[in-house]
Order: sequence, then C-alpha cells, then structure tokens
Amino acid sequence: MSTSLIDNGVNVEALLGAREALAAAPEAAQFHWRARCEWVNGTHSRTTVHDFSGLGAEHTHRERFTFEGDHPEVFASEDHGATPAEIVLAALASCLTAGIAAVATNRGVQLRSVTCTVEADHDVRGILGADPDVRNGFNGVLVHYTIDADASREDIEAIVAQSQKRSAVYDILTNPTAVTVDVN
Amino acid sequence: MSTSLIDNGVNVEALLGAREALAAAPEAAQFHWRARCEWVNGTHSRTTVHDFSGLGAEHTHRERFTFEGDHPEVFASEDHGATPAEIVLAALASCLTAGIAAVATNRGVQLRSVTCTVEADHDVRGILGADPDVRNGFNGVLVHYTIDADASREDIEAIVAQSQKRSAVYDILTNPTAVTVDVN
Repeated sequence: MSTSLIDNGVNVEALLGAREALAAAPEAAQFHWRARCEWVNGTHSRTTVHDFSGLGAEHTHRERFTFEGDHPEVFASEDHGATPAEIVLAALASCLTAGIAAVATNRGVQLRSVTCTVEADHDVRGILGADPDVRNGFNGVLVHYTIDADASREDIEAIVAQSQKRSAVYDILTNPTAVTVDVN
Repeated sequence: MSTSLIDNGVNVEALLGAREALAAAPEAAQFHWRARCEWVNGTHSRTTVHDFSGLGAEHTHRERFTFEGDHPEVFASEDHGATPAEIVLAALASCLTAGIAAVATNRGVQLRSVTCTVEADHDVRGILGADPDVRNGFNGVLVHYTIDADASREDIEAIVAQSQKRSAVYDILTNPTAVTVDVN
C-alpha cells in the first residue's frame, strides 16, 4: 500500500527526512521547550507557551498557548481551570494520538476517527500529607483507544503500540526524569 | 504569625480538615481523573476535561476545559496547539505554583507575586527513532521561581521545597507511573 493514496494530514516524508538529517547532526536535535507560569490567586495559575529552540535556532509558535490550572470546588478552590493532574492526561493523550496519526500514515493506513479516554487513579492522601506511605502522583493510568481506520484490528493495535514506543509523554510518565526546582 | 492576617485565596482550613477526614476514610480519597481526546487532523488533537470522581461521588468542573495539542511547523505540522511536551511543563508549573500558594498560606506568608519559568531539554532523536540510545522524553527539567512575599529568602525556599515534596506532577515526572494503553 502506498502512502500517497492516503491522507491523514501528516507529512511523513518530512519526518523521515528529519530522522535521517538529525541522526547525522545530533546537536540540531537538542530542543528546549519552555513555559512561563504566573500565580493568579489561590490555587489558580496561568501558564503560557510561546517560544522554544531546536534545529540550532529560536522559534515561536504561531500563537501564544495558555493553560489555566486550578483545583476544583471539592478541594475548596474556585475551579478556574483543569487540575494539574488532568493537564498531564491531556499531554499524554495528545502525544499518543499524534503518534498514531504519524505511524498510521507511515504504514499507509487511512484513519477515519481516533478517540481515546484517559483515566488516572489518584489517592489524594499523598498530596494532602495524610499518609506518608501514599505517593503524591497517580497509582496508574489507563488509555483506551477507539479507532476507525482502513486496517485490521491487529494492524491498528500495532500502530498504537508503535506510537506508545516512540511517545515522549508516555516515556516521561513511565520513567524517571530529573526535575530541578530553584528560587531566584 | 496568624493565617487570619493574610489572604492568598487558599482555604487552608478546608485542606487541613480534608487531610484529617481522609486519613480516617481512605476510600473517599480515591480520585479518578479523566480526559477525552479526539484526533482532529495530522498531529492535531483536542482533549477535553470535564468530570471526575472522588469523595465517593461524581463531580463536574464548572466548565469543560479544552486542550489543543499539535506539533510545530519545524516538525512539518500546522502548530494548532502546544506540543504535548509543553503541556507537561504547564502541568508541572501549575501544580508547583498551587502548592506554593497553599503552603505559604499555611505558614502565614502573604504572597505578592509568584512566577516561574520551566525549561526542558529534549533530544528529539529519541521520538524520531534516529538513535535507539536516546530516550523519548526529556533529558531534564529546570523550574526557576521568582517570588515576592512577606518572608525571608530562607522561608521562601522552604515553601517551594515543601510544595515540591507534596506535588502530584513533580512525583509523576520524577518517579515511574504504570500506564496501560489498549484498543477497544
């Protein structure tokens, strides 16, 4: 099956070209993502994403993307935004879904629809300090895809597995990352 | 210093009450966060967050929160949203910042302004499959706070450290979480 017959809106040729080019130029592959956060009031904050560097240059997004974070009313907050925990789930879903579109295109599979639900179990005794044996983060996360595509169930499962294998956010959740927090 | 003299917009009494109540009722502390993602086109997806469960009941946010995820033009995409990697940074910043407001209030510290920058180093050879020895996720993350508050530098640093110690998203990044991905 030729990829030229399908159109998922992914430029796979450019990605394959980037893979080849960056394998030979590792310094260009070093990206620096940035976010700026401002406390609004209570547990409400506003984070903006605008510029990043990579390919040896500075770049700006086409627009400034803004994220409102807050806690819900059941935590005695004002619910002006999603919880940080839910924002993590949005990151995971968007990463895996982009990967599914890219891998499907590379394999000549036309997608018609891709949806997923993400669920995270979270024992909030950790963040409340109610039990030192309970971790602060999730106990586990389940991502459940429903995909309509011109492919067998086995091929669809293999596309999802390959997206998972190359997902930045899946890796960030399942493996440790060093995070340094300091004060100016 | 009395917490009644300061107002950061955080209801610390309610949080302390929840800590006590949930220590004695662990089943009520089990929260389930949910997100639903829909592929739009190419690497662009839309994730919505609306309902969750906890305290033994179902809850809905005051509104439906939406996250557009995409890849930038330097990845041959259309840049309709932040990258999933940047969305992770927004989650981390909002989690730590909410914690700073809560801890400062608990310690009787009036905040005037809290801002942070978050930077992540990311070698994209991992996600491109250009080098099997490069991980898909970040090489590291640096969060840098600037805080104006009625407190000494040492007290401010201790507030930030305590927020970090109780942060769900800091834990999610720095420690492994089990993530299961399946197809309907």
